[in-house]
Amino acid sequence: MAESVERLQQRVEELERELAQERSRRALGGGDGGGGRVRIEKMSPEVVDSNPYSRLMALKRMGIVNDYEKIRTFAIAIVGVGGVGSVTAEMLTRCGIGKLLLFDYDKVELANMNRLFFQPHQAGLSKVQAAEYTLRNINPDVLFEVHNYNITTVENFQHFMDRISNGGLEEGKPVDLVLSCVDNFEARMTINTACNELGQTWMESGVSENAVSGHIQLIIPGESACFACAPPLVVAANIDEKTLKREGVCAASLPTTMGVVAGILVQNVLKFLLNFGTVSFYLGYNAMQDFFPTMSMKPNPQCDDRNCRKQQEEYKKKVAALPKPEVVQEEEEIIHEDNEWGIELVSEVSEEELKNSSGPVPDLPEGITVAYTIPEKQEDSVAEVTVEDSGESLEDLMAKMKNM
Amino acid sequence: MAESVERLQQRVEELERELAQERSRRALGGGDGGGGRVRIEKMSPEVVDSNPYSRLMALKRMGIVNDYEKIRTFAIAIVGVGGVGSVTAEMLTRCGIGKLLLFDYDKVELANMNRLFFQPHQAGLSKVQAAEYTLRNINPDVLFEVHNYNITTVENFQHFMDRISNGGLEEGKPVDLVLSCVDNFEARMTINTACNELGQTWMESGVSENAVSGHIQLIIPGESACFACAPPLVVAANIDEKTLKREGVCAASLPTTMGVVAGILVQNVLKFLLNFGTVSFYLGYNAMQDFFPTMSMKPNPQCDDRNCRKQQEEYKKKVAALPKPEVVQEEEEIIHEDNEWGIELVSEVSEEELKNSSGPVPDLPEGITVAYTIPEKQEDSVAEVTVEDSGESLEDLMAKMKNM
Repeated sequence: MAESVERLQQRVEELERELAQERSRRALGGGDGGGGRVRIEKMSPEVVDSNPYSRLMALKRMGIVNDYEKIRTFAIAIVGVGGVGSVTAEMLTRCGIGKLLLFDYDKVELANMNRLFFQPHQAGLSKVQAAEYTLRNINPDVLFEVHNYNITTVENFQHFMDRISNGGLEEGKPVDLVLSCVDNFEARMTINTACNELGQTWMESGVSENAVSGHIQLIIPGESACFACAPPLVVAANIDEKTLKREGVCAASLPTTMGVVAGILVQNVLKFLLNFGTVSFYLGYNAMQDFFPTMSMKPNPQCDDRNCRKQQEEYKKKVAALPKPEVVQEEEEIIHEDNEWGIELVSEVSEEELKNSSGPVPDLPEGITVAYTIPEKQEDSVAEVTVEDSGESLEDLMAKMKNM
Repeated sequence: MAESVERLQQRVEELERELAQERSRRALGGGDGGGGRVRIEKMSPEVVDSNPYSRLMALKRMGIVNDYEKIRTFAIAIVGVGGVGSVTAEMLTRCGIGKLLLFDYDKVELANMNRLFFQPHQAGLSKVQAAEYTLRNINPDVLFEVHNYNITTVENFQHFMDRISNGGLEEGKPVDLVLSCVDNFEARMTINTACNELGQTWMESGVSENAVSGHIQLIIPGESACFACAPPLVVAANIDEKTLKREGVCAASLPTTMGVVAGILVQNVLKFLLNFGTVSFYLGYNAMQDFFPTMSMKPNPQCDDRNCRKQQEEYKKKVAALPKPEVVQEEEEIIHEDNEWGIELVSEVSEEELKNSSGPVPDLPEGITVAYTIPEKQEDSVAEVTVEDSGESLEDLMAKMKNM
């Protein structure tokens, strides 16, 4: 009898432990933190229902990507795991990226539930922890490294720089790409500073405060304009204030706009890393009009960031050292020489549209033009992309943004 | 002592029951099927972390949507809960739609894990059941009705028609919109047949077999071209075979392309239902070039579907009965009269680009033009959008597709 009681007591303890484990697993990520499927050593193209990579490896058979397996050799840092960053991380995880480094200091809230990825039972957990558990369950082949801190403080900035420089797939090597999915000017400038110093290629993304426009931008230090040379949306459409989240303002957001921005961001990452299609230097999304402007920008030789200017010098030397014919061709494909900063429109705005566009051209320094214009038949509600004659120069706008 | 044993045995049974419940909850949807948060009677604009609707209600304050709460009065049927349909359902659920009706007959497989939404521990469950549990957990305010069957069989088709006609938010009323997120020609034609017969507005979506292009299309029976008048991508770019999944072919797929297509689909749904921005009749996505063509098409007066022709007659009568000035204006906004079917390009291709585009124009009946052209500097890998001179007419292509 005594033995029976002891066995029962043991069984109760065992069950209580298992129940607690189950509950914490469910709270954390919905899955069981890796047990959803076994790890896979080598990506296989085999067409069977049990192969999670069959539809990706099919990109080779379809003639889109030469070497899809290469995806496993890349490490990507994502700063900001919110409406855009979390979906970006999930897409890369499902694509079978080698390693993800996630940076965020926020907690999951019910107020985030109007965007994809996080679920109500995760409210209160740190975003990076909740994301890691969910993502690990989705694809246990991916390596994760998460940092629950604000990159803009002095101490954390040093650590952030160190992980960008050494947190690659092989420890000690730099990451292959940094993705900015943050919602404020300061964090973007911090990433910009780090990447200019390290010569680290990165992509920036953003969604407007009114939830109906967004953009992505590829920044190769020294080669294309950095965030300090000219913040993308100031140049693009004079919509600075609505683009960057202001302190104390409850911005609107939509899962649609954020899903599209994450989608075009990760698509650009895949094209960049796996070498297919045309990589965009800037791609905008205007949801009200279903308009997607593209452009590219040369760096500003007078950029405030001295590391940007240094990278520009190094890039010039690199280009000068290349055999002549290739250089000329490459330059011409990316950059037009007919204005100071090389801003150009790529195919979205016809001559006729430009003629018919409403609104005066904003007051910008010579050589900078707006990236898109508004068609004549315009609804009142799209004030955020109206090119207003605010009488402010680019410098004024940037000074304003710095003060936010 | 006997009492103690009995109590312990009861406790073991209780714990075993709870553990089994926890495990089944986790297997089904990751959450606890509704306990993630409590139901909310009325959408509030209050800016607090615990309000899941604060960022959506902010769309009113931002001047984008007049009456966001109206979202709760709509019922939407989604046919196909795969790579596009599942994300579409999740976005609408997070936006707080009134009711979703989901139709699919497939099971979750590990081979689906390269797209968003489903998780490995759901493998083996029916897609509609797994989706319902996950979505109910995300937003318990949404009503769900799921049907685990193939809509193309005679018996199921009748039931499908009945639910479209009577499955609205109030039983007996029709749904507000049908979304096609299927991957084959037969299912699209079935939805088209049903919607033409019922005069039901619907939106079609598709992703190409090579994973790097997609489209959405709005079909208002009698007013815009139906799927039988001219399948969208045949007209758009002569890429019939790669667009529609063929039997026995393992199509490639990417979470990026499917996420973008779901995003532009649900954005179009929100604009259509909540009356903001410009609703697109057709929006394409070419991921290789980051090119997003738009167009609109008038219905074909010789359409094979007699209900389409009937709806055209009814639309004509309706338009004729309207006061004159509005009619003329409305017509001119949507449709140009300079070719037989009213196909027009909207602003994406400039005159210069058209001149510089490579490849001969395909052999299509008079009055039909291609929706987009390929810029001169073209990579070899984008064969799927090359306008080839196949010598085939639109009729030939459609006959081919019907035989697939």
